[in-house]
Amino acid sequence: MKFELIQKGKGTKARAGKITTDHGEIETPIFMPVGTIGSVKGLHLKDLSDDVQAQIILGNTYHLYLRPGLDTLEKAGGLHKFNGWNGPILTDSGGFQVFSLGDIRKITEEGAEFRSHIDGSRHLFTPENVMDTQRTIGADIIMAFDECTPGDADYGYAKKSLSLTQRWLERCVKRFDETKPKYGYNQTLFPIVQGCVYKDLRIKAAEHVASLDREGYAIGGLSVGESEEDMYAMVEVVNEVLPEEKPRYLMGVGTPVNILENIDRGVDMFDCVMPTRNGRNGMLFTWNGIMNMRNQKWANDFTPLDPAGTSYVDQTYTKAYVRHLYKSKEMLGAQIGSIHNLTFYLSLVREARKQILDGTFPEWKARMVKQLSRRL
Amino acid sequence: MKFELIQKGKGTKARAGKITTDHGEIETPIFMPVGTIGSVKGLHLKDLSDDVQAQIILGNTYHLYLRPGLDTLEKAGGLHKFNGWNGPILTDSGGFQVFSLGDIRKITEEGAEFRSHIDGSRHLFTPENVMDTQRTIGADIIMAFDECTPGDADYGYAKKSLSLTQRWLERCVKRFDETKPKYGYNQTLFPIVQGCVYKDLRIKAAEHVASLDREGYAIGGLSVGESEEDMYAMVEVVNEVLPEEKPRYLMGVGTPVNILENIDRGVDMFDCVMPTRNGRNGMLFTWNGIMNMRNQKWANDFTPLDPAGTSYVDQTYTKAYVRHLYKSKEMLGAQIGSIHNLTFYLSLVREARKQILDGTFPEWKARMVKQLSRRL
Repeated sequence: MKFELIQKGKGTKARAGKITTDHGEIETPIFMPVGTIGSVKGLHLKDLSDDVQAQIILGNTYHLYLRPGLDTLEKAGGLHKFNGWNGPILTDSGGFQVFSLGDIRKITEEGAEFRSHIDGSRHLFTPENVMDTQRTIGADIIMAFDECTPGDADYGYAKKSLSLTQRWLERCVKRFDETKPKYGYNQTLFPIVQGCVYKDLRIKAAEHVASLDREGYAIGGLSVGESEEDMYAMVEVVNEVLPEEKPRYLMGVGTPVNILENIDRGVDMFDCVMPTRNGRNGMLFTWNGIMNMRNQKWANDFTPLDPAGTSYVDQTYTKAYVRHLYKSKEMLGAQIGSIHNLTFYLSLVREARKQILDGTFPEWKARMVKQLSRRL
Repeated sequence: MKFELIQKGKGTKARAGKITTDHGEIETPIFMPVGTIGSVKGLHLKDLSDDVQAQIILGNTYHLYLRPGLDTLEKAGGLHKFNGWNGPILTDSGGFQVFSLGDIRKITEEGAEFRSHIDGSRHLFTPENVMDTQRTIGADIIMAFDECTPGDADYGYAKKSLSLTQRWLERCVKRFDETKPKYGYNQTLFPIVQGCVYKDLRIKAAEHVASLDREGYAIGGLSVGESEEDMYAMVEVVNEVLPEEKPRYLMGVGTPVNILENIDRGVDMFDCVMPTRNGRNGMLFTWNGIMNMRNQKWANDFTPLDPAGTSYVDQTYTKAYVRHLYKSKEMLGAQIGSIHNLTFYLSLVREARKQILDGTFPEWKARMVKQLSRRL
């Protein structure tokens, strides 16, 4: 993997760059649609390429490990061959999902023991086997196995948790470097910075990952219950420490405004289930603000769904029809909302990149932040 | 509406024809995808045109009357403007749905009183207001309001029920002929032949509708619990009576084999929820037989979903991946199955038409009937 820092913005820490992987290039800043179990919910592959213009998608190790399972993925020749997506893929480590299981998981020095949410079967994720699993899934970018500290953890817990994450990271790096890709293309490992909302822990964590000299770094444990101010403050602190010449990935964030604010603070990569999850429920993001498609006000509005939108669905369907689909629980509503939102998210980061290259990002961002959070 | 009988098959009652409506032409025999509440479940408009190559779709009066309701449909300028489908639309009369409501409906001479399955509100469908409703929905082809007699009704019930249907039909015709289209294009009314599985009732019903000299006729009350032999026998009896120069629509039928058998008996138009409903559940129809995509046998089959299929999904996704989507309850599975099945159904009637025109329908049908019902 190669990262080229093309331009740093003026009056901002925002950057435009380019990541090159064996499955193609990624222009940053970028948003990665989430393909939980291999599919981006509600979208065909052609929707992803034609409408959304996705450059990289994300897969969830926990889900893929359980279904279809490593045997099938290996026989297929990896996830790209299995789901037909030929661009770059990043996989999370499964840590976040496992920790979300609550009562049915147990964390030890060795790793995380958990029960499958599907059939209750017992499994153990360790830093070592999670590296092997992601090698087998065939991700271009592999994430370290960490403990995702809750946003409201106290200092003591956060400190202990970070130490565990750091020991696990060392084991991840060791295992990753001892093993080879399975399918003939390169894979790379991104460490994850934890430390909750505590500045000194975040700095310590960032210094530690930077010392490992990998090809990219992630910031985890944000957008997990802390305030937006804390999120932005932590990103600022961490990006002060992370090397400039490597891409920075903020995991699981967020709203369109969150994305612009974090681009402004030097983040290059994002993922979030929000565009698809909210899309399925009828909340649509547009350049002019947020539309709740279940609202009565759209019942007789026969104008196009989003005149400024670049997706097929934006010009094809009317607001009144899309409202009707959501009210009637027709699956086409969920499909339309998902395509629309993802297309919008990708337009957003594409436009942000253009503004960075043009040197106009700060003014544009200030304008957008007001506009994007309006309720229509 | 105009119907042109282009060719009668040799050694079969199968016919190739062409229906011309103000929203375009329909080559018969044809299958009509069901767009219950305005949308064909799981399909975008472009899937319907590009993949399925649908020529006409069906809407359900009962569902559209309740949601979005006549006020919105009228303000939109009719269903075509509302859902964006520019081809011909046929609406059923709502009778079938109302009678399916069981305990929450009551049939009188005046009409059918029922409670909404959504909010329990009371409504009354009469032959007259159902004509008005379909005028307002804006269907190109409007169906008479009838009582759909259950397949296991005794002779006495079936006879009484047919009489009611006939009196209602006279009222439908009167109201339809007294009223005008709302949106500037022509609409036509198809009477429905009932009579359960009783030959004399079916003949009586067919003679009655034929005497009304409308532009097309439907056969209802089949595929509602009777045997396949009874279904085929009734279609034969009715088609002996119905005039040759008018299109014949067999309502709610059926499997691919049912469709070929009834084309063979002189039916021109079909609709059924089977391709979409079964598609959502993982049962796929192909030229080589039926595939249950949840079956373990596809788990590691990385060949294309249907190499002989003409839809985008057939070549894009593998059997193993599609199985995984169904097993994981990912909505993309339902989308793929629905597009695949509808594309197959339309290929089937298109190929049947070609075989009729080539004079080879009977041999081809005999071969297909064996092939299509195999379990793969």
